[in-house]
Amino acid sequence: MQINACIITIGDELLIGQTIDTNSAWLGTELNSRGVWVRKRVAVGDVRKEIEDTLTAELLSNDIVIITGGLGPTADDITKPLLCDFFGGTLINNDKVEAHVRAFFEKRKRPMLDVNIAQAMVPDVCEVLWNQYGTAPGMLFCKNGKLIFALPGVPLEMKEIMSSSGFAEIEKYFTMPNVRHATICTAGKGESFIAVMLRDFEKSLPKEIKLAYLPGLGQVKLRLTAMDVTQEMLTKYATELQHLVAPICFATSDISLQQAIFNYLKDNQLTIAFAESCTGGYLSHLFTDISGASKVLISNFVTYTNEAKQNILGVSKVILDEHTEVSEEASLSMATQAKNISGSSLALSTTGYLESNENTDSFVWIAITDGIKSTTIKQLLPYARVKNKELAASFALTLLWHFLKK
Amino acid sequence: MQINACIITIGDELLIGQTIDTNSAWLGTELNSRGVWVRKRVAVGDVRKEIEDTLTAELLSNDIVIITGGLGPTADDITKPLLCDFFGGTLINNDKVEAHVRAFFEKRKRPMLDVNIAQAMVPDVCEVLWNQYGTAPGMLFCKNGKLIFALPGVPLEMKEIMSSSGFAEIEKYFTMPNVRHATICTAGKGESFIAVMLRDFEKSLPKEIKLAYLPGLGQVKLRLTAMDVTQEMLTKYATELQHLVAPICFATSDISLQQAIFNYLKDNQLTIAFAESCTGGYLSHLFTDISGASKVLISNFVTYTNEAKQNILGVSKVILDEHTEVSEEASLSMATQAKNISGSSLALSTTGYLESNENTDSFVWIAITDGIKSTTIKQLLPYARVKNKELAASFALTLLWHFLKK
Repeated sequence: MQINACIITIGDELLIGQTIDTNSAWLGTELNSRGVWVRKRVAVGDVRKEIEDTLTAELLSNDIVIITGGLGPTADDITKPLLCDFFGGTLINNDKVEAHVRAFFEKRKRPMLDVNIAQAMVPDVCEVLWNQYGTAPGMLFCKNGKLIFALPGVPLEMKEIMSSSGFAEIEKYFTMPNVRHATICTAGKGESFIAVMLRDFEKSLPKEIKLAYLPGLGQVKLRLTAMDVTQEMLTKYATELQHLVAPICFATSDISLQQAIFNYLKDNQLTIAFAESCTGGYLSHLFTDISGASKVLISNFVTYTNEAKQNILGVSKVILDEHTEVSEEASLSMATQAKNISGSSLALSTTGYLESNENTDSFVWIAITDGIKSTTIKQLLPYARVKNKELAASFALTLLWHFLKK
Repeated sequence: MQINACIITIGDELLIGQTIDTNSAWLGTELNSRGVWVRKRVAVGDVRKEIEDTLTAELLSNDIVIITGGLGPTADDITKPLLCDFFGGTLINNDKVEAHVRAFFEKRKRPMLDVNIAQAMVPDVCEVLWNQYGTAPGMLFCKNGKLIFALPGVPLEMKEIMSSSGFAEIEKYFTMPNVRHATICTAGKGESFIAVMLRDFEKSLPKEIKLAYLPGLGQVKLRLTAMDVTQEMLTKYATELQHLVAPICFATSDISLQQAIFNYLKDNQLTIAFAESCTGGYLSHLFTDISGASKVLISNFVTYTNEAKQNILGVSKVILDEHTEVSEEASLSMATQAKNISGSSLALSTTGYLESNENTDSFVWIAITDGIKSTTIKQLLPYARVKNKELAASFALTLLWHFLKK
């Protein structure tokens, strides 16, 4: 039996476009991966009647309703009293939540207000879901064989509550289908190119196994989802898929390209330095999101001006004058100098134009060296500034992956 | 009279989280800025009955319904025949659209398939809205005094159709209210703290002017939205609001804190260097998203290891040994050395622990110097690694703003 879910997000800020709804996408992915089908998503404003009508309507055709938002301390939040009435309960003070709220403000040395203490009031007909990162508790209601979650809208808090207890409650309450996933991560080719490569493979898949393309900037993840199929069977198809995309495959589990590179460098006791010009620190930002980054990343010289390239990295004035700062020669000199100064095993540099003008297209030169062998590449950047920066970083990581694997 | 709208997005990829819905946020912002209130957003899958039921329900309580997605050439798209039946029309070939589709494929030297030619079939009861960037035409239906748009889901195409003709159709059809906005940006205080400060101000607002809190990490934007009110009247309240939050206000237009800092530095012909340890390049990443960043940002020394702090920045071993690398002394030395090496007007450093363990909480030391005066601050980081990094950057920018304004 299919388990259906509806996600209801509450808040005027979603309707007027102040906030992009990333919660629903995350919940959709997570529920889907557990075999729950998200049938519908609805966003409504801070209007009691709208919330009530939506909840009533969606409970008719869904087994699970997840409400996010509308639980904050400001006056316009109306969700909690509404839920209390809807499920026929009374708001009572929860001592454990109150102690948590008090400790929360004490730790941050911030004054606590009445509206904050009021967050400890919860309907007596719900189960409190612990919110480690915030003051608004999650709430779980159960009615007529259906589960209704009410969660704070802050993504970090919502995710933590669902991960630490919410999904477990769903799995406890319903008989879940047996869903298995296999993910193959690729970099360097577009979705439609890969789709052509995999046309026969897709046709050969049994109906219990579906292939999804999850495209990112310069990267595509391929996800096989199997319903009620043995692990052996899924592995057989995953191995075949991996074989078909071998030249562009960087991982056989769902990880980022920088994580795959980090793992490889760490396993091989290699260190790296960056010399970023046009990517402006974005590459080391990506690496330092990884726990334990200091084991691998020694330093990054973000040399944004020509003077910085000369004075800090020691790129020669001759190279800059003869070839300009956006050239193969400049990129190679930047990488070589970054490696020499930092004493790392290898170094990567980027230098480019993020914006095109009447004189030049936007493009990037990327160089990598380990002191013995080097590689360089020039890539066009066809988008606007910010997206071009992300794309340049993706090109750099792809080149680095191939350099390491050679 | 309030004009209400509902946005319906169609596609399984939205429900299972493969695609984050940015279209709705954009439409919400644009409609809101024109005085159309988005009452609701609904995302449904590629299921005819669901789409039909949602459309029927939403037409009851909205003046405008905008449908995006479900118009592509693939077999699972069912929206066009559905709309044709719903509004009682027949699918006919549109010569102008067919010529456009043919030219589209010719220009790209890509083979054209029957499914592509079928895109020229449109209901005879709609007005075709020209799609400059793609092959699926936009469609506008008009029924019982209501407007119904059906648009492709590709953001670039959807935006172009609405910008070049869609919004104009709405403004032609309805008598639009006069909507004005004023935004005041603040940093350094939380939403509930500000809400208390502004309690009386909020009460004093006429019902035509609404105040919205838009919280970000360490920052809150305050937006006044005025309906059918003179600019003079809105300015009066905006000025009062600005006055009330003066100590934490960094801008009176809707810009980011790094943009405000960039503008100030540029206007005063000042340059900056960073020495980032725990923020790992995130600060210079934020700055280099701004066009013209090289006018202001000279360099960033991402010195992630102790050796890099010594060898590249020249932080003394004595400081690191006596005070550790996460100390006021280390942060101040990092900032001073970054300024000296890069020759910038001022420099900012960050050093901290992004993750807590049994021995230490997670916190950051931030230092700023202009060579004459310096400032330092220690801030707790109460979240998980990635969010702590962003919060540390927000603290750093806030400190920098205050340093510049002193």
